[in-house]
Amino acid sequence: MGRWEPDAQGRLLRAALELFSEHGYDATTTAQIAERAGLTKTTLFRLFPDKREIVFQGQGRLVALVTAGVEEAPVDASAEELVRAGLCSLSAAHTPDLRETGRTLDPILASSEELRERAVFKRSALTSALEQALMRRLGDARQAGVLADLGIRAYYAGYEIWVAVEDQRSFTDYVLDELAALQDAARQLHTAGSRGA
Amino acid sequence: MGRWEPDAQGRLLRAALELFSEHGYDATTTAQIAERAGLTKTTLFRLFPDKREIVFQGQGRLVALVTAGVEEAPVDASAEELVRAGLCSLSAAHTPDLRETGRTLDPILASSEELRERAVFKRSALTSALEQALMRRLGDARQAGVLADLGIRAYYAGYEIWVAVEDQRSFTDYVLDELAALQDAARQLHTAGSRGA
Repeated sequence: MGRWEPDAQGRLLRAALELFSEHGYDATTTAQIAERAGLTKTTLFRLFPDKREIVFQGQGRLVALVTAGVEEAPVDASAEELVRAGLCSLSAAHTPDLRETGRTLDPILASSEELRERAVFKRSALTSALEQALMRRLGDARQAGVLADLGIRAYYAGYEIWVAVEDQRSFTDYVLDELAALQDAARQLHTAGSRGA
Repeated sequence: MGRWEPDAQGRLLRAALELFSEHGYDATTTAQIAERAGLTKTTLFRLFPDKREIVFQGQGRLVALVTAGVEEAPVDASAEELVRAGLCSLSAAHTPDLRETGRTLDPILASSEELRERAVFKRSALTSALEQALMRRLGDARQAGVLADLGIRAYYAGYEIWVAVEDQRSFTDYVLDELAALQDAARQLHTAGSRGA
């Protein structure tokens, strides 16, 4: 193991985003990222298995947060309260610097199918984590699945707005507003005899 | 372009599944797959951009089928009828030989994170296609999103049972049963004041 490098992960993220923005994702090598970050390639590969994971660092923490949020909700929480608890816990990770990262990252993601594929995989891992946590509390696999889809849809829709706009509302506000709107939409759909269009 | 090879895609699929089952996904090369199929590597790469796509061939057709199903539904179809129409159209692709392919493929998928990641990406593409088709019919993005999640969840859950069991029920039956069960679960969840557990 190499010597300890202060904030190596953050330095690699900033270096990677700079280089991807300048030269594109495909044209940037891990050697260039390490060099820009003032680190060795060995240190990079000690921290990340591949170039893509530099960008998605912190996703493991998101899985842990959403799970903990559901697990720590009051024993008498309703199904919807459990989802809200998971999403509120998740939101805690969304600091202002992550908002800036999101703004830089969005056009890079749009430019690379390889990155989008990994992003979709991460979304799927987050959905599964929420689904499993809900399943343990609710004991109903279908309810857990439906609620996890709804919650993660709210999370991503809220994230998209949070990154796009510039105001003082918190990340949590956007996600919970979106959750409520999706729940309304679902309620309308699942009322017997509802008609589309 | 090479000369025409009868059922080259099917031959490559069968060769790939045989080799993945025998030696594992990672240890199998595209050269070995082409050789086993009695084709050249050039023909393989003319048909598929990479090793993974051999396994997921036909996914583009699924996207087209689910979209067409929604588009061709009666003008007065309810939101739930639109989803059913999409899923019924999708089911038409699920012939008995696909059931066999699924049985061979499942343990291979379980063994490779690279393949699972691509499978998740394909599920996401199918969800987006259904979501967009529903959006064009319903004019409500949130309803379209919620319904697409529900429909694709039903499709994958139905597929899982269809591959696992051995009986005479059709693929469509499994998917529509699962859709109805998920809709019940959603109805219970979205009834005001519902309590979990």
